[in-house]
Amino acid sequence: METETALSPVPVVAAAEQAPGAAMHALLTRLFPICRSITGQGVRQTLGILREYLLGLQVYEVPTGTPAYDWLVPPEWNIRDAYVKNQAGERVIDFQQNNLHVVSYSAPVRGWLTRAELLPHLHTLPGQPNLIPYRTSYYAETWGFCLSHQALLGLDEPGYEVCIDSTLAPGSLTYGELFLPGETTDEVLISCHICHPSLANDNLSGIAVAIFLARYLTRQPRRYGYRFVFVPGTIGSLTWLSRNADAVTRIRHGLVATLLGSAGGFTYKKSRRGEAEIDRLVARVLADRGLPHHIQEFSPYGYDERQYCSPGFNLPVGCLSRTPFGEFPEYHTSADNPEFVRPAALGGALELFQTIVETLEANRRYRNLSPFGEPQLGRRGLYKATGGGPEGAAFQLALLWVLNLADGHYDLLGMAERSGLRFAQLRQAAEALLAAGLLTDESHPLPANPAAHDLR
Amino acid sequence: METETALSPVPVVAAAEQAPGAAMHALLTRLFPICRSITGQGVRQTLGILREYLLGLQVYEVPTGTPAYDWLVPPEWNIRDAYVKNQAGERVIDFQQNNLHVVSYSAPVRGWLTRAELLPHLHTLPGQPNLIPYRTSYYAETWGFCLSHQALLGLDEPGYEVCIDSTLAPGSLTYGELFLPGETTDEVLISCHICHPSLANDNLSGIAVAIFLARYLTRQPRRYGYRFVFVPGTIGSLTWLSRNADAVTRIRHGLVATLLGSAGGFTYKKSRRGEAEIDRLVARVLADRGLPHHIQEFSPYGYDERQYCSPGFNLPVGCLSRTPFGEFPEYHTSADNPEFVRPAALGGALELFQTIVETLEANRRYRNLSPFGEPQLGRRGLYKATGGGPEGAAFQLALLWVLNLADGHYDLLGMAERSGLRFAQLRQAAEALLAAGLLTDESHPLPANPAAHDLR
Amino acid sequence: METETALSPVPVVAAAEQAPGAAMHALLTRLFPICRSITGQGVRQTLGILREYLLGLQVYEVPTGTPAYDWLVPPEWNIRDAYVKNQAGERVIDFQQNNLHVVSYSAPVRGWLTRAELLPHLHTLPGQPNLIPYRTSYYAETWGFCLSHQALLGLDEPGYEVCIDSTLAPGSLTYGELFLPGETTDEVLISCHICHPSLANDNLSGIAVAIFLARYLTRQPRRYGYRFVFVPGTIGSLTWLSRNADAVTRIRHGLVATLLGSAGGFTYKKSRRGEAEIDRLVARVLADRGLPHHIQEFSPYGYDERQYCSPGFNLPVGCLSRTPFGEFPEYHTSADNPEFVRPAALGGALELFQTIVETLEANRRYRNLSPFGEPQLGRRGLYKATGGGPEGAAFQLALLWVLNLADGHYDLLGMAERSGLRFAQLRQAAEALLAAGLLTDESHPLPANPAAHDLR
Repeated sequence: METETALSPVPVVAAAEQAPGAAMHALLTRLFPICRSITGQGVRQTLGILREYLLGLQVYEVPTGTPAYDWLVPPEWNIRDAYVKNQAGERVIDFQQNNLHVVSYSAPVRGWLTRAELLPHLHTLPGQPNLIPYRTSYYAETWGFCLSHQALLGLDEPGYEVCIDSTLAPGSLTYGELFLPGETTDEVLISCHICHPSLANDNLSGIAVAIFLARYLTRQPRRYGYRFVFVPGTIGSLTWLSRNADAVTRIRHGLVATLLGSAGGFTYKKSRRGEAEIDRLVARVLADRGLPHHIQEFSPYGYDERQYCSPGFNLPVGCLSRTPFGEFPEYHTSADNPEFVRPAALGGALELFQTIVETLEANRRYRNLSPFGEPQLGRRGLYKATGGGPEGAAFQLALLWVLNLADGHYDLLGMAERSGLRFAQLRQAAEALLAAGLLTDESHPLPANPAAHDLR
Repeated sequence: METETALSPVPVVAAAEQAPGAAMHALLTRLFPICRSITGQGVRQTLGILREYLLGLQVYEVPTGTPAYDWLVPPEWNIRDAYVKNQAGERVIDFQQNNLHVVSYSAPVRGWLTRAELLPHLHTLPGQPNLIPYRTSYYAETWGFCLSHQALLGLDEPGYEVCIDSTLAPGSLTYGELFLPGETTDEVLISCHICHPSLANDNLSGIAVAIFLARYLTRQPRRYGYRFVFVPGTIGSLTWLSRNADAVTRIRHGLVATLLGSAGGFTYKKSRRGEAEIDRLVARVLADRGLPHHIQEFSPYGYDERQYCSPGFNLPVGCLSRTPFGEFPEYHTSADNPEFVRPAALGGALELFQTIVETLEANRRYRNLSPFGEPQLGRRGLYKATGGGPEGAAFQLALLWVLNLADGHYDLLGMAERSGLRFAQLRQAAEALLAAGLLTDESHPLPANPAAHDLR
Repeated sequence: METETALSPVPVVAAAEQAPGAAMHALLTRLFPICRSITGQGVRQTLGILREYLLGLQVYEVPTGTPAYDWLVPPEWNIRDAYVKNQAGERVIDFQQNNLHVVSYSAPVRGWLTRAELLPHLHTLPGQPNLIPYRTSYYAETWGFCLSHQALLGLDEPGYEVCIDSTLAPGSLTYGELFLPGETTDEVLISCHICHPSLANDNLSGIAVAIFLARYLTRQPRRYGYRFVFVPGTIGSLTWLSRNADAVTRIRHGLVATLLGSAGGFTYKKSRRGEAEIDRLVARVLADRGLPHHIQEFSPYGYDERQYCSPGFNLPVGCLSRTPFGEFPEYHTSADNPEFVRPAALGGALELFQTIVETLEANRRYRNLSPFGEPQLGRRGLYKATGGGPEGAAFQLALLWVLNLADGHYDLLGMAERSGLRFAQLRQAAEALLAAGLLTDESHPLPANPAAHDLR
């Protein structure tokens, strides 16, 4: 297994020389031009590049027609070219210029249409007249073009030549998965959607952060196993869920990673459970680090947390982003490009994900071995006779809180919530008390996720 | 049973031609002059008129001396005439003018009294000098007159002739009951007090709304049975409770209906349980409809919810009114007359009660039959590929919420509380999903009210 | 037992002639000059004086080296004299003037030191230049003097004669305990620290209030037993806990009494349990009496509640003070003297403690013997037919609340919390209903404290 997760030499070295934000931005810029959809070569090409960063990334192909709970894997969609030409033979809409110009999953079409026939197939954003919208039509066979409203106003000829050189045919759905084993069988899921074409923040930002988080985790001791899935939205997560019933029962915490490259503060949307450890922990990490953020209650609309949090699974999977979908003007338009994404924003997001996994790893449950009164800290060198500054006093207080709450019920997160101290302070205190023989670590693999037992 | 609940032809037709508010006001105006008390001909006469509206209304007579838990049915009180005459033989206080002039349950009295002897028997409202107060003395045998303070100031003669031509004698307590059976044995209780004389809002308004609600329900399919009781306050509800131990165990929800004719917003006073389905549901209906309202916590002072919510019963019975007792200046005075009651207020109250019972009927518990991920709504015609306006988006969101929460634990009310969507939106979504075969209805008769098991 | 708790004749009589505040202040003034520490003659002398007030107070001696959970009883410290003399032989720092001048538990020292050698052993408060600080060094063998910063500035000679005539030698730790038995085996703990030298508010105020509370309780009927412990901080409470495993299992409620003589409002710091009866009850008494106060959540820093609330015991013991430690400028300085403590503050604190124990005693759990509907209060003389003023209405309402909530689950405190009525109102109502035969008292000894079962 470890050899599979070894890092590829070339891009690693290059990446290691850059600040993580810049390296993630470089990856994003390289992936940007590819025309992805929920199936097809664009996804394969994307995963191929990701494997350069993580050799252990496995790529799976699931044939068209394979059932995934209530769904079937759809025909594979591929596209070579698409355009609308005027009477002079000039491409007035050109897929080669921007793959957003074609409605994703458009059926093939070729011929001359009158302007009136063409218009119902054209999509624009009158309120943002210079931007191309992003549109899809996965499950209703049709075709269409997207263009700026400005460009639409120039289409005044009586007829146009239309071509979409696409195929919708039996093939497969492609997804990537990387598993980094841990000391226990408990797992953490990180999920990204990889089905969007030339959109940078949505979701190349999430992919880049997940890749670099995985690279970071390969070098860390891990209590949990970490499972990264790179899947097309909805059908991809459903396909993965349907093929991994065993892994699903081992998921203890999870995050959907998306929209991490914009300038705004963070948004954490809770899992359906609402008070799961991941929900409380992300809120605590954001507060401890003093990061501007917003916590949202669960709702069944959004990204693949919709599937993970469906009632049959009810997994503790939240969604971590910066400004959420629909709340920034570049969302689902051609303005969501690599210039919109800031390297520093990617870097800050990676740091946050790293702190979250560090905190998950460190969130142990301890038992005070000297629970009758306080133990004598002085003779163990844990009591500063001379008092010390505010740092010393805070450390003393953290020692007392850990000793007081280490009754086998509180984990460090619960101690942080009750005491108002930062998780890191309590962790430092717990480690000192553990070293002094005053605590035992009572963490153990959690009971299997009861809601996930009868997956079919 | 159905024949018993058939509607009487004559007033029905008349009522049907009127707007419901006007029809209820007409009933109230007809009942207004009758001198009701906790027993006696006034109650019988009132129930007789109510039977014209609901043939199924049963009238029960319970003899004086019958025990009702800690109480005994009191002697029956009837009154033919009462007055105070001056030396010229003129009636200066006259029961024939307004039955509020006599303290309810006054013992008979006849003779000449000096002004000083008479004064302790006279009750006025110095702060509202033109109004006659309403006073009772049910369980302490005495007599008295009520009059405006203005009129009292004119009583300057040295002596007066006093007559109260009443009887307090063995007889019976009279109450009315209508039961509309439902598909299940579970029942909803609607209770009104019928013991007040010429007071319109308190409680002819509640009686009129309850009668028209019952008429409405006769024409509806009913999951629940509906039990309407028209009882004198306190002793009447206690008498009904003591004679209906079986029915009490079947009550799942209940409302006391009172003070529904004034101009103010609604007030819902929760049951003792505080979080009973009826408590949460009424609050939700009021919020969903955007009606001005106030929710009060339970208190053991008020109307017959005091009895239904006593600890031996602890029934989920709240009290729904407009401006509560004691909070409007006309309360318990001669100003609480038919002019004070607004037909539109009665109409609005009826609509609210109708919505509440519709919501109770519709508050089902569903189970998602495709709980692993979202089912594919598109191939069932439940997904608007073209997006649609805000209505369409709201419907989509409601579909997702119902699917997500239909785990057998949430009912539609719980879904509304969690999602923030309106109950009606979720109901519409649930019905569409049920029609598509994606849900089952897991509603079933609730377990019997545990607190009511050992009634004695 | 009763003979043991008999009150000593002489000071009792004197005290009885004074207002309690003045009597407590006189006791405090008498105890003030004694040099107390965590062991030694000062504690013995203090307990000897307390026994004049309470003959039943038992004094225990626990030898040096005795284990107390993680701790050992330390060597006994005694001091006869201490000074720093200048070259003229004048005492420039003199223990005889104020025992705060010596760091408590200073090892013996004698000799000439240069100014530079002496300075590291001197402690001042530059921010409060006229006050002597209070310092201790119990578990690190060293020595030192405390003095005003003003006095330090005058020490400009090149060398000084230093003498601390103390002993640190095998001996014992001394503590006092008084037990007033009650009708049940359930106990209330009142704990005071007695280890501070000439500091008045901290904690002679707590000692004085506890002594007078105990004197008051000797004259009261008692459902609970009351255990007063007068112990040196930390090691004293740990020693007491380690020797009284049986008593610990019987503690149902407890308070640490400290800092009760200053002018400020009260501060109640909750027990670790947070919602223990004592926590809710003290908050309710403070609110009912309209006293300015502040409720603090538990924290493991503070007085001996740290030990009682350690996870092995988790006793329901809060801490009741006026302005808390560290929040008034006189704290741990020579300004905490008898002039700082106000007799009226001591008197108000005693009244509060008396109300708390009265409320604990009265906080019964009743069952309504007529739970089906309201019982007829009128025929039991509990219903004012004529209405009565606001007092009468409040009493009526209290009767209804007690009847409604007396279902065996609510105690009077829970009724006060739910109804918003004052505890005293509900108690008065419950007593009237009990006298009328409408309630039974279902209070009984509570189950033993589960957390305290496996003390070792």
